[in-house]
Amino acid sequence: MALKNLADAFHDELRDILSAERQLVKALPKMAKHASCEKLTQAINNHLIETQNQIDRVEQAFEETGKQAKAKTCEAMKGLITEANEMLDEEGEPAVKDALIIACAQKVEHYEIATYGTLCTWAEALGYVNALKLLKQNINEEEAADEKLSELAKTINMAAMAAPAG
Amino acid sequence: MALKNLADAFHDELRDILSAERQLVKALPKMAKHASCEKLTQAINNHLIETQNQIDRVEQAFEETGKQAKAKTCEAMKGLITEANEMLDEEGEPAVKDALIIACAQKVEHYEIATYGTLCTWAEALGYVNALKLLKQNINEEEAADEKLSELAKTINMAAMAAPAG
Repeated sequence: MALKNLADAFHDELRDILSAERQLVKALPKMAKHASCEKLTQAINNHLIETQNQIDRVEQAFEETGKQAKAKTCEAMKGLITEANEMLDEEGEPAVKDALIIACAQKVEHYEIATYGTLCTWAEALGYVNALKLLKQNINEEEAADEKLSELAKTINMAAMAAPAG
Repeated sequence: MALKNLADAFHDELRDILSAERQLVKALPKMAKHASCEKLTQAINNHLIETQNQIDRVEQAFEETGKQAKAKTCEAMKGLITEANEMLDEEGEPAVKDALIIACAQKVEHYEIATYGTLCTWAEALGYVNALKLLKQNINEEEAADEKLSELAKTINMAAMAAPAG
């Protein structure tokens, strides 16, 4: 039986987020490259560095709980990235595409917030004190990144409203 | 040019969520069927009814903004459902699987919250008053569903901790 206790569920979910974060590291540079607002490019590049640190923390969480770090393809992140790439390849006004890049990035953040939320709850229930500390750092960063994107969206939506064809 | 103004971005996103909600209506019955906690089955079945109403509201939002309701395959929801189905097909302790069903459902909720969040911001910027009202109803329902799942998780995680092999 694959899922015989809550620890199995925890490690299953940890393998999912490890795959998600690793996929994201590969996808963010394309998003940064297609962004036209400098602040957005910067925000994406900053999040790339954060994501690399988050991968390290997830790997440490495996170690802290006596398991080998192993990813399991996260189909949800695969879908999120496919959608983002399709949009990036479409032609559009730069400010409108920036608004859509933010929308995609916030979907990614929300996926991660939901997953880390579950992981934190389970780590607490299982008494995984050190893993909990690491996962909390990740969820805090994701929430801050999401807020930053909402803030940036205010300026970018106004620019998109003023787009020549708008 | 496909994305020439913010209204194009709005309708692009509306087509995405219409697909997402329609996929969800087909996926929820399997989740309800596999849940063993009666309150969880009930919560999923309630959300199925809510989702059907949300589809109506999204279709109305198209109408209110002068467009024909048309879905565009939401790859992210496809991934989320693939992941949920893979988990449902695995063998496991009923309480542990319930905990994982909640985790999957919360990821779905967060995807929708992120999308409706963007849609509401854009509807407001574009002056789509009636569409905004409809979309706000949807996001409020998603947020309430997410909170209800967090509440249910408390009991279910405890049951999963007490699972025979736990």
